[in-house]
Amino acid sequence: MTVLNSQTSVLTGHRSLGWETRPVAAPGPHEVRVKVRRIGVCGSDVHYYTHGRIGKFVVEGPLVLGHEVSGVVEAVGEGVSRVKVGDRVALEPGVPCRRCAYCKSGAYNLCPDMTFMATPPIDGALSQYVLWPDDFVFPVPASVSDDAAALLEPLAVGVWAARKGAVKTGDSVAVFGAGPIGCTTIQAAKAAGATLLIAVDLEDFRLDLARQVGATHTFNARTGDPLEFIRSVTAARDGLPLSHAGVDVSFETAGSLPTTRLSLAAPKPGGVTVLVGLPPDPEVSLDIVSAASREVSIRGVFRYANCYPAAIELVASGAVNLDALITHRYDFAQTAEAFAFADAEKKTSMKVMIEVNSG
Amino acid sequence: MTVLNSQTSVLTGHRSLGWETRPVAAPGPHEVRVKVRRIGVCGSDVHYYTHGRIGKFVVEGPLVLGHEVSGVVEAVGEGVSRVKVGDRVALEPGVPCRRCAYCKSGAYNLCPDMTFMATPPIDGALSQYVLWPDDFVFPVPASVSDDAAALLEPLAVGVWAARKGAVKTGDSVAVFGAGPIGCTTIQAAKAAGATLLIAVDLEDFRLDLARQVGATHTFNARTGDPLEFIRSVTAARDGLPLSHAGVDVSFETAGSLPTTRLSLAAPKPGGVTVLVGLPPDPEVSLDIVSAASREVSIRGVFRYANCYPAAIELVASGAVNLDALITHRYDFAQTAEAFAFADAEKKTSMKVMIEVNSG
Amino acid sequence: MTVLNSQTSVLTGHRSLGWETRPVAAPGPHEVRVKVRRIGVCGSDVHYYTHGRIGKFVVEGPLVLGHEVSGVVEAVGEGVSRVKVGDRVALEPGVPCRRCAYCKSGAYNLCPDMTFMATPPIDGALSQYVLWPDDFVFPVPASVSDDAAALLEPLAVGVWAARKGAVKTGDSVAVFGAGPIGCTTIQAAKAAGATLLIAVDLEDFRLDLARQVGATHTFNARTGDPLEFIRSVTAARDGLPLSHAGVDVSFETAGSLPTTRLSLAAPKPGGVTVLVGLPPDPEVSLDIVSAASREVSIRGVFRYANCYPAAIELVASGAVNLDALITHRYDFAQTAEAFAFADAEKKTSMKVMIEVNSG
Amino acid sequence: MTVLNSQTSVLTGHRSLGWETRPVAAPGPHEVRVKVRRIGVCGSDVHYYTHGRIGKFVVEGPLVLGHEVSGVVEAVGEGVSRVKVGDRVALEPGVPCRRCAYCKSGAYNLCPDMTFMATPPIDGALSQYVLWPDDFVFPVPASVSDDAAALLEPLAVGVWAARKGAVKTGDSVAVFGAGPIGCTTIQAAKAAGATLLIAVDLEDFRLDLARQVGATHTFNARTGDPLEFIRSVTAARDGLPLSHAGVDVSFETAGSLPTTRLSLAAPKPGGVTVLVGLPPDPEVSLDIVSAASREVSIRGVFRYANCYPAAIELVASGAVNLDALITHRYDFAQTAEAFAFADAEKKTSMKVMIEVNSG
Repeated sequence: MTVLNSQTSVLTGHRSLGWETRPVAAPGPHEVRVKVRRIGVCGSDVHYYTHGRIGKFVVEGPLVLGHEVSGVVEAVGEGVSRVKVGDRVALEPGVPCRRCAYCKSGAYNLCPDMTFMATPPIDGALSQYVLWPDDFVFPVPASVSDDAAALLEPLAVGVWAARKGAVKTGDSVAVFGAGPIGCTTIQAAKAAGATLLIAVDLEDFRLDLARQVGATHTFNARTGDPLEFIRSVTAARDGLPLSHAGVDVSFETAGSLPTTRLSLAAPKPGGVTVLVGLPPDPEVSLDIVSAASREVSIRGVFRYANCYPAAIELVASGAVNLDALITHRYDFAQTAEAFAFADAEKKTSMKVMIEVNSG
Repeated sequence: MTVLNSQTSVLTGHRSLGWETRPVAAPGPHEVRVKVRRIGVCGSDVHYYTHGRIGKFVVEGPLVLGHEVSGVVEAVGEGVSRVKVGDRVALEPGVPCRRCAYCKSGAYNLCPDMTFMATPPIDGALSQYVLWPDDFVFPVPASVSDDAAALLEPLAVGVWAARKGAVKTGDSVAVFGAGPIGCTTIQAAKAAGATLLIAVDLEDFRLDLARQVGATHTFNARTGDPLEFIRSVTAARDGLPLSHAGVDVSFETAGSLPTTRLSLAAPKPGGVTVLVGLPPDPEVSLDIVSAASREVSIRGVFRYANCYPAAIELVASGAVNLDALITHRYDFAQTAEAFAFADAEKKTSMKVMIEVNSG
Repeated sequence: MTVLNSQTSVLTGHRSLGWETRPVAAPGPHEVRVKVRRIGVCGSDVHYYTHGRIGKFVVEGPLVLGHEVSGVVEAVGEGVSRVKVGDRVALEPGVPCRRCAYCKSGAYNLCPDMTFMATPPIDGALSQYVLWPDDFVFPVPASVSDDAAALLEPLAVGVWAARKGAVKTGDSVAVFGAGPIGCTTIQAAKAAGATLLIAVDLEDFRLDLARQVGATHTFNARTGDPLEFIRSVTAARDGLPLSHAGVDVSFETAGSLPTTRLSLAAPKPGGVTVLVGLPPDPEVSLDIVSAASREVSIRGVFRYANCYPAAIELVASGAVNLDALITHRYDFAQTAEAFAFADAEKKTSMKVMIEVNSG
Repeated sequence: MTVLNSQTSVLTGHRSLGWETRPVAAPGPHEVRVKVRRIGVCGSDVHYYTHGRIGKFVVEGPLVLGHEVSGVVEAVGEGVSRVKVGDRVALEPGVPCRRCAYCKSGAYNLCPDMTFMATPPIDGALSQYVLWPDDFVFPVPASVSDDAAALLEPLAVGVWAARKGAVKTGDSVAVFGAGPIGCTTIQAAKAAGATLLIAVDLEDFRLDLARQVGATHTFNARTGDPLEFIRSVTAARDGLPLSHAGVDVSFETAGSLPTTRLSLAAPKPGGVTVLVGLPPDPEVSLDIVSAASREVSIRGVFRYANCYPAAIELVASGAVNLDALITHRYDFAQTAEAFAFADAEKKTSMKVMIEVNSG
């Protein structure tokens, strides 16, 4: 096992992606070298590409993007037993310290020393090869495509959101925002037993896809008041007066102030709202009084922990269809075009997939 | 609203069912009079019919059997707003005191003053009409058949079992016994997100039905060791050595000692076993040491609480198919034949349904 | 058992309390007639007295105040077995419908048909006698004084808040506001195992009492930034950098915007904030982004459910001292003076107690 | 930092302890070298000393005993920031792999690759110096004595047991066995809010100590039926008929069949029993039917996870007194005498402490 030269796409400036050849070392103990197959383009990748920062994370040097990653194991280091050369795998992109109180108690997503792909200054995986710790490399069965394996990452967010919402069989849910995270949240909530799933967005294109992957109702917020719609549907279902109607769990996935306000108002008394996206301004004006006095719990989501095994199972079993989310595809050589498109065409695209190496 | 004469099937002795005409009063406050449509025959009904007792509950006078009940609302008393005349409904057969600490804290199934249909000395619903408190009468949508509405009762047991087992997305489960309760447990566990579902029974007929309603694997215990099979399947799935393999949750639904022992042994460390059935002898020899030292939780099930709404949703949404469980049908006039058959032909029947009034 | 004439204090207008003699009927089935001994004056009583409304609840006719109630059983109706004549008792002041989905699932505090004392148009207990349903009448042992029995009501709020916060052994908590609810919250959190308890208020008088009943640290917000103090104390305790320090659970009990903002900021990542009080304006500007991205859960509190038995146990065992909270006492005849004082002297009073009948 | 010679007590055969001088290396990255101060003698140490095995763990070569360990940091390796030279510390004796699904999800006590002190073939800490990973080395404040720091280990078991039992404020508990683990379980349950604590044992000596550290009631099982006593006490407290009385949570800590049977029978319907000890035979005859049909959950305990921080807080705050459990003390040179005594005098000793180096 020797060092490999790996052609790598590098963000070098504002909306500027270049190529570098970078060495990828032979895997050390408990490391795996993966030949990358697919990289899904995430909203955060595009945001670094266009804005150079997300909150406190600022791009200050060349950065490799890409954290939705699938590939095939090319070499393994000492002590690796979970995977073997030739295995098709998905990479969980965040690696915690494994030693702090958060890591030890199962909340490794809150580890203060997290290393997360494509979050400055940590490089992502838009490269021919990457090295990764074996315990964050997950083999996938044949029923999970290379594309779907890359999209296990946004599905992990949905699975975590559904867990945070404690979705259970027979629940009603509303999902604000029907982008990739909204759609994986719908899928994860449905897999957890929700039977009434209302997707709310501004684009019919997205709502159609949401319905295709599991929403039972869709509502375009340009056409009226989503709350009125939600209360009407749930009142009929649950035999409640409109004043007490609402969903068991709402999810905010659009990251806007209006949807955050809707998400707090949508649950019935005793319900839950899960904030997966976040409004762009730190300080927002909200009717927290109404939410609190109805005992609606407000729960935030920061990435996920221990969700890859469940996500793989959901796709492998057919409960979740990730391939349906891919609307556009590019070769690795077209990476710059892929980002330019993803930046420009949000209204007509759901998930853009880059084929780094063919399967 | 006047008193109605209601033709009623009455258990009058050992394997002896007769007919009586009984008055059914006009509904009082918060009461509903239901014209019964379907009664599912439960194993406990058959057991009272053949043995005259179940544990401490002894048949000491004429008893009306039947607690899996659907019908149509014929009259409502004062203050009833949840249902109206003409609604197709399912009846939850147990009514608690509503005042004790168990009732107030959501565990009404443990209420010491429970009134439960067809549990001596409380009469069941094998009659043309029954009176019932409105808060235990649930309207069902058109997508739930009269047959399915009656079978919401065994589905409620399955939903409760899955809740007790805390089944979540991606879980592996094993269900010992593939009778009606085993099959509704499989369905409820699948609806809650389980992706690997192993049914174990002695009859291929039942295992075929279990697979039809959701089992991904079936194992006839006449052909080998179910534990070996379970460990082999889960080890492959979870990438574990055989010594640490096992399901996330196991369910005992057969009520036998061998299956109870299997159910305790089947979970992986940290897993759960749910005892839905119970071995016939109070005192049984078990390897509780192994279960406890693997931190396997052992949880009992006594009926259910707050499960009808979820059960209705699961059937209405198509997540669960109850009609598939019905293998034999009888008219009300053939009630005695229905019980004789259910008693004699356990190996070839799953659920026997009595049509009290047609829909 | 005959009808009794009961001298009753009635709110008849703005800051105006008069006297009426009202009949109190003989107890019906499952009812208890209680000779009232003590009524604690709550902030909500004073608010109706001074403002005539709280949110949507508006005083539109004569209203009897008082919902912190102890007394002695004077007569019992048919079917009452939980208490007997002569028992010293506390009254839980809210009685739900017992039939809706909330009541059946243990969340009766959210029942849409709740009857709650001294919430218009329902009368409270500032009267010589009251009738009450037996399942909301709790006998107290000799170790619980009549005064303490009345104060089980605000303790129930604290117990509910600590449950919502899921306080566990070894936890650190911060309580914003050290009034009666702040103090019972501190006591309930300490009883649940919290070992670091920081009380924050603007009045040293209240902070001294908070320390007396269990706070390990107090901070007067006039003297500096409470967050800085909290982070410094918790960083030292937990071996964390200031940037990651914070309490496990924070409680807002003061009902102001600044304390609500502090309460959201005080928990460590993955922590919880419980909003017991609520800011006066429905729409408030908050940094919910920071809370959500640290996965801090925000949970509201609306009264309580199933807390009286635990509250009684905590006082009877000596874990909680309610008598220490009483700073001023009045005879029943001085009820008007009691309210005038409670209105005027918030800075020097904690809990004002009215002695309706002596023990 | 150089290699140190460490005088070490070694189990060399049946009831035979000898001395060896063993090298202790300089600490590597994330390692700490600790000068040992106290070693508590645990029942498992004595069992290896007398029987040479516990279940599947067999002593096959020289073994160093001792896993209840306190000391002072003598040197630290690269990257250690949690502790510094001179810190007084407690050592958590089990170190998991940090990489498997159990470790990642917070259940590291179930890690298949656990390294646990004094469990063959892993050496314990009966030595002048030990090397240990920094994340399992916990600094203790001045209010925690060297003795108490060593006894944080059995307290961690009690804290874990109370967590498994989900003890909450106002709960009633029964603890079968009042040895060191029984006493730390009582203390942890009391700290979690239990107000009725019944200790059951065969020795008054132990029951007296149990009462001293928190039991509110004690019962010597030589004098009558513990179940009758428990039901009588809880019936009176909770206002229940004897037939429905019982504790919220029972704990088995004696490791015998009779106490296991009692522990299953002691909870009220819906309660919990926690098996901390385990009967000596793998296969035992139990009335699991009664437990399951009352929905009593049976939960096993295998060591503990994430309990040291809470245990330290409980002792530092004064909520738990560990020093009271020490009945006998020996110098390091008297280690053999200490074991001989602990083996022979179980009825009159609670905890035997060995002073390896003075504080």
